[in-house]
Formats: sequence, C-alpha cells, structure tokens
Amino acid sequence: MKTALPNMTWIAVDWGSSLVRVWAMDAQGKVVATQQSSQGANRLQNTEYEATLLNLIEPWLENHQSVPVLIAGMAGSRQGWQEAAYLNLPWSWAKQAQSTFVVTQDSRIRVYLLSGLKQLHPPDVMRGEETQVIGLLTQQPDFNGVVILPGTHSKWVRLQEGVIQAFHTCMTGELFQLLSEQSMLRHSVTTQTWAAESFDAAFLTALAQPAQLSYRLFSLRAEHLLLDTKADALRTKLSAYLLALEIAAMREQGLIQAELPLALIGNSRLGQLYAHSLQLLGMKATRFDGEALVQAGLYRAYQELGLCVN
Amino acid sequence: MKTALPNMTWIAVDWGSSLVRVWAMDAQGKVVATQQSSQGANRLQNTEYEATLLNLIEPWLENHQSVPVLIAGMAGSRQGWQEAAYLNLPWSWAKQAQSTFVVTQDSRIRVYLLSGLKQLHPPDVMRGEETQVIGLLTQQPDFNGVVILPGTHSKWVRLQEGVIQAFHTCMTGELFQLLSEQSMLRHSVTTQTWAAESFDAAFLTALAQPAQLSYRLFSLRAEHLLLDTKADALRTKLSAYLLALEIAAMREQGLIQAELPLALIGNSRLGQLYAHSLQLLGMKATRFDGEALVQAGLYRAYQELGLCVN
Repeated sequence: MKTALPNMTWIAVDWGSSLVRVWAMDAQGKVVATQQSSQGANRLQNTEYEATLLNLIEPWLENHQSVPVLIAGMAGSRQGWQEAAYLNLPWSWAKQAQSTFVVTQDSRIRVYLLSGLKQLHPPDVMRGEETQVIGLLTQQPDFNGVVILPGTHSKWVRLQEGVIQAFHTCMTGELFQLLSEQSMLRHSVTTQTWAAESFDAAFLTALAQPAQLSYRLFSLRAEHLLLDTKADALRTKLSAYLLALEIAAMREQGLIQAELPLALIGNSRLGQLYAHSLQLLGMKATRFDGEALVQAGLYRAYQELGLCVN
Repeated sequence: MKTALPNMTWIAVDWGSSLVRVWAMDAQGKVVATQQSSQGANRLQNTEYEATLLNLIEPWLENHQSVPVLIAGMAGSRQGWQEAAYLNLPWSWAKQAQSTFVVTQDSRIRVYLLSGLKQLHPPDVMRGEETQVIGLLTQQPDFNGVVILPGTHSKWVRLQEGVIQAFHTCMTGELFQLLSEQSMLRHSVTTQTWAAESFDAAFLTALAQPAQLSYRLFSLRAEHLLLDTKADALRTKLSAYLLALEIAAMREQGLIQAELPLALIGNSRLGQLYAHSLQLLGMKATRFDGEALVQAGLYRAYQELGLCVN
C-alpha cells in the first residue's frame, strides 16, 4: 500500500472562531499539504469537532498509524471541543508549555489542544494569538516591544525577552461588523469599496477626540442624508473612527511609544490599515505574515511538548 | 346618530421608529382618547401608513366630517409615509412652523406631517424631538440651556430663548442594543435585572478615560469567563461605559457646564439613569415628562399652523 503523504509526521491546526486551517507537516516543520474550511468554532457543537477534523484530513491518514494533531485557538475554549484551561501571566513559552489531550473515537489521530492565556488585572483572555507570538519568538527570541494582532478582537501584546507581560483586547473589528451590518448605519455604508482619501482626516480627528465616537457615528448617517456623501467614503470614515478609538486607547495604555518596537502580524488589508494608521502617528511597525507565524509557533510547541516521540 | 367622541376636534400623533402613539384631542389640547401600537416607522412601507393609522382611529371618526391629523416623528422621513423636508438651524418655532399635507384615500382625515430639523456643521438630523422641545417652550418660553432627550439616538439640544441653536445625536441606545443582543457580549449579559451598585464606579472610570471603550467592552467578557462576575453587574457596567462615553463627549462639546441649565425629558428608567449620571458630575437636571411635552408641542403646532380653522 502506498503512503498518502510519505513525509507527514504530524498535523498542525489553527481553529479560529470563523475558520479552521489544517496543515500536514514534516518532521522539520515544513508544510506538505493544506486544507481549510469555514467550520469555525462559532458554528460547531463540541460533538462535531472530530468529524469536522476527519473530514479535512482523512485522505492524509493511514490505518495502523497514529498521527499527533496539535490545535491552537478556539477549539480549546469552554464552548469549543474541550476546555484547555487558560495559563497565567507573565507567561514564558519555554517554561510553561501546556496542552490538553482529547480522547477521540478514531485511533488514527492523537489530538492535543494548546492552552490559551488569561490576565486578571485587567481581565482579558486570548486563544490562538499566543501561538503566533511563539512563532514570532522563533524568529526574534529577544524581541522587546509590542506585538499587534489585528482582527475581530484585536490583541496588543507586551512582550519582553520571551515573556508575555500583559495584553489588551479591543473589540474594534466586531464593532465595525455590527455597525456596518446591523445598525442604522447599514443604510449608509452599502458598499465593499474603499475610499482611501477619506481615511486620514477622519482618523486624525477621531484620534484627537476619541470620546466623540457615538456622536460621530450618527453624523455619518446625517452626512448621507444631508450631503449625499458616498457610501465608500462613509464606510472608510466608520473604519477610521473605530481604529482611532483603539489606537488612542493603546497609546494611553503606554503601548505606543517612540522607544518601543512594534511588530504587526497580518498581511491582509486590515494589517495594512493598522500600519498606515501607525505611520500617521509617526510610528513604524515591522510586518509579519500571520499564517507563517502560527505554523512556526505550532512547530515549536510540537517540539517542546515532546509530541514527536511516538 | 351618536357622535363617537363629541369633544374631539383633531388628532395628535407621535410616529416614532418603533412605536406610534395617537391621541384624540379637544380644542383646548386636552386628550380625550388614546391609542398606540408597535407599528413604528421601522416596520412600515410608505403604502401602509394610512391603513395603520385608520386601524387605530377608526372608532373615533364620523362620516361627512374631516378631522385634522397632525403627525410628528419618523412618518415624515424619506423612508416614511412621505418626506417632510428638514428645516434649517437656527430654528425658532414661532417664525418657522411648517408641515407637509399628505393626500389620503379616506376623506375623513386631513393628514399633516411636521418637518424635522437638520444641521449642516456638523451634520445631524432630528425628527420628533423638536416637537417635545416646542412642548417644553410652552412651559418655559425663555429657557436658555440644554435639553437632553435620552433614547435609541439621544439628542442634546442647545436652546436659547425659543431658538434651537445646535444639537448633537449620540447612538448610545443603539450601541447598547447591538452589543447586548448581537455581539459576543450577549453571552455575558443574559439578564434584564439591574445591579445599581455596579454603575457608579464603572461610569466614573469610563468617564475619566473614554477612549478605552472598545478595550473595556472585551474586558466584560473576560470578567465573565475568569471571575464569574454576574450578568446583571456586567450589563450595568456595559450601560455605564456607553453612557460615560456620551456624557464625556457632550461635556467636551461644552454642553455640560455649571452655568447652563439642563432639562431632561423622559421619566423612564433611562431618564433616571441620565439624571443619576449627571448627579455624579455634580449637575442637576430638571425632569420633564416626554408624553406630556409631545402633546403640548403638537397642540402648539396645531394652533400655529392654523389647522383649527376648517
């Protein structure tokens, strides 16, 4: 019998809220095959995870073999596959690696869920982003600065020589989604196009007076009714107002400072927007690719947890 | 034939986004009968208004008579029954009364839509609240201060001796609704009860650093996950954070000042919450009943527009 993927020794998974990405990996952490689906944790009951995973990786599996599967992200949340308890801050990957073994029906897989992180003062949690931070540390072990992970719930992580000291989550992406799709503003931002020329002024105005947010939001609707401002300009301004709120807050928290290096994870348009906004403040962020980092982080965890030993 | 409502000479209507309230009025502006329904403007096509109205007032009508019906609110919006063009600021009721006549199929009613107000710098609009302000002016013709109208879209109106000089709308109520019902926070605020003891500290903290909003919002979720804080406390804090944002913004705009009288319209729990929040800033607002004011405003408009002359 021919082996499906001769070089595959383990499987890496990033199971987010809306997306699950699966990589067949070799012993050196190189990707040999890829799968993904929109069966994110938001859509699944805990009883559905195994079948969902098998559906993605079945062609890679052999009988009479057992492959380690290491999973980062929301699959380890209370509403996920099984809860992988949060680990405390300050958190150093090298000393505090931890995963939770999941009993599966199918003996061809051995599933491990990576733990997320919790912070008590002020209360905050993350699941999945810590693995990207580990990935960053494989490239820059002594990074001393702030790691920014834009997204539905953006994370700002204070990292000091391999130790996560603190982090802050902003609901910016979810606020944008709610306001543009569910609020009264949805009638005024009916477009997917972007009006770059409307961004800067809106961002800087909102940054100077972040408290004016809920009043500025209504103004977008009024601009539409009274001045016939186009939907793409209004959508861009909405984005600028919310991003300015996040950046004003993180600046107040001391996370944006001249002497503090910024690492920005994400090559998407959202990542570009964060980089551009920081430039408007005179800050330069070093950009990293999120997918490469989560793979690197999972590989590092795979080694540290000793999963390579059968 | 007996007359249904012998004293009724006209009908007053407040047609809001979510609620329509109808009053049969006598010549002195006294209510002789009341109806209401949840057929607000948000639920209706423009072709459905006449039938909706008739359904509420049919028992009051007589054949061979034609009753004036004066309507304030969203029925006059672009998506409403028929558009009643906005009037400009500064706006003095006494000099600038205006209504739009609506052609109806049923000859027993003569329908007039009151105009709303628009402001160009910064862009803002109102429909319905101006009628409550007129009502307030019937009681205090020389009021020189700020009128606060809490609601889904709260209005702060700068009023000077009968003239509306400027106003600001905050989306606070809609933000609360979206966040408590549609966002990830809905899992953490699953209650209708109120934890008054959690309000003050949350309000004052958020007022001191309004920019921290989107970061504080996520913290509510984390508090639930990590500290098992109760849903009523989290819901109360959510409310406090959003109200603090509005009040911080309006204070920055110069609308909350020691020498500026505050009139607060609304006897609901929301009105009480605004009054309490202002007290935390050392401000005292005079309270008014919204329903009484909109009736008084409509009566004043009925007189000014000469609708009493058949």
